[in-house]
Amino acid sequence: MEQETRLSESLPAEPGTVRPGGRTAKVRRAVLDATEDALVTAGFHTLNMDQIAASAGVGKTTVYRRWGSPVGLVTDLLRDMAERSLPSADTGSLAGDLQANADLVHDSLTDPRLAALFRAVIAAAACDPVCASALRGFYRTRLAEWAPVVSRAVDRGELAADIDALELLRAVSAPLYYRFAISREELRPADAERAVVAALAAAAAGAFARTRDGRD
Amino acid sequence: MEQETRLSESLPAEPGTVRPGGRTAKVRRAVLDATEDALVTAGFHTLNMDQIAASAGVGKTTVYRRWGSPVGLVTDLLRDMAERSLPSADTGSLAGDLQANADLVHDSLTDPRLAALFRAVIAAAACDPVCASALRGFYRTRLAEWAPVVSRAVDRGELAADIDALELLRAVSAPLYYRFAISREELRPADAERAVVAALAAAAAGAFARTRDGRD
Repeated sequence: MEQETRLSESLPAEPGTVRPGGRTAKVRRAVLDATEDALVTAGFHTLNMDQIAASAGVGKTTVYRRWGSPVGLVTDLLRDMAERSLPSADTGSLAGDLQANADLVHDSLTDPRLAALFRAVIAAAACDPVCASALRGFYRTRLAEWAPVVSRAVDRGELAADIDALELLRAVSAPLYYRFAISREELRPADAERAVVAALAAAAAGAFARTRDGRD
Repeated sequence: MEQETRLSESLPAEPGTVRPGGRTAKVRRAVLDATEDALVTAGFHTLNMDQIAASAGVGKTTVYRRWGSPVGLVTDLLRDMAERSLPSADTGSLAGDLQANADLVHDSLTDPRLAALFRAVIAAAACDPVCASALRGFYRTRLAEWAPVVSRAVDRGELAADIDALELLRAVSAPLYYRFAISREELRPADAERAVVAALAAAAAGAFARTRDGRD
């Protein structure tokens, strides 16, 4: 318990609000790595706070006090995944940037470890509204990260100014996630290429114009 | 147990291979309705064979013998959902037919009961490979059901003959399922309209041509 006290001395009210490098950050890293391992290996429904504490080498009291529940662990892991997600590409062309994005999604969803992790967080979101909100936050961050790809294309004159950047980005990802999580079909590099060709054609035809449906 | 024996006398080796109307079909209907209710109310992970038997008014022995496990129940329910899915539209135009399909997906995923059911089967598929295979079968059936929409459009000269019908249909559904299950964003009628406009533009640009990537 003494170690517990020392580890939790500088704990913030909310996880994830402390800069990396300190003891708090090390505890968080160890716990989130253990959470990720457990999700990859056995999924959301067997996530066990005591086992996470043991795997991370962190006291149970710290894990319970700071994360509260398996939902708290998944929520913080999704925040961490968003923080760690790769920055957007800047290849000089919209097609190049969108292909880089599609390839990144394809590679993530066909990597055995990441595929298992994404399946686990999608399942967690399907079962728990707090996890659903955290998953929404992850994709909101990820889409925002890639939005400059679209604004640069507008600046270069490749796209009309009224394009809804996020709709174009969603259109690239959607067919890949559909195969991965819904129709459960094999995901091939050709699917990533087709997603880009289709999204570019739809954008050129004005399908993602903000003025189409009065939304912004 | 005597009732058990009578009910199971004519049981087939595989569920779902007997024509509706008989006692076997009635038992199946009651068990699948109870399974659907349980998935809607509490999800896949609390699915309990004894509770399903009690809710359906069917003996436990029958439920265990015929479905074996919660996975067996979900698998047979997905087969049943595919059998019950609405036939494809025939509005006279490709745009009209695809809009009917997009509206059907939109309406299903925004209906509280069906949304909960789809979340439960997607979560089940994320957790169990047999459920994943059953979900793949459900969408395979559903896509095949709607494929004539595309072949009729080819016959009318609305599409090139080398179109991959299933890719076009997937493109209509994917953005809606992406919001529903992945980015967890609100799904609005405008999303269904945009999905159709985008898919039609992509099809016109040859994005779904079989010859694009050498697949069929």
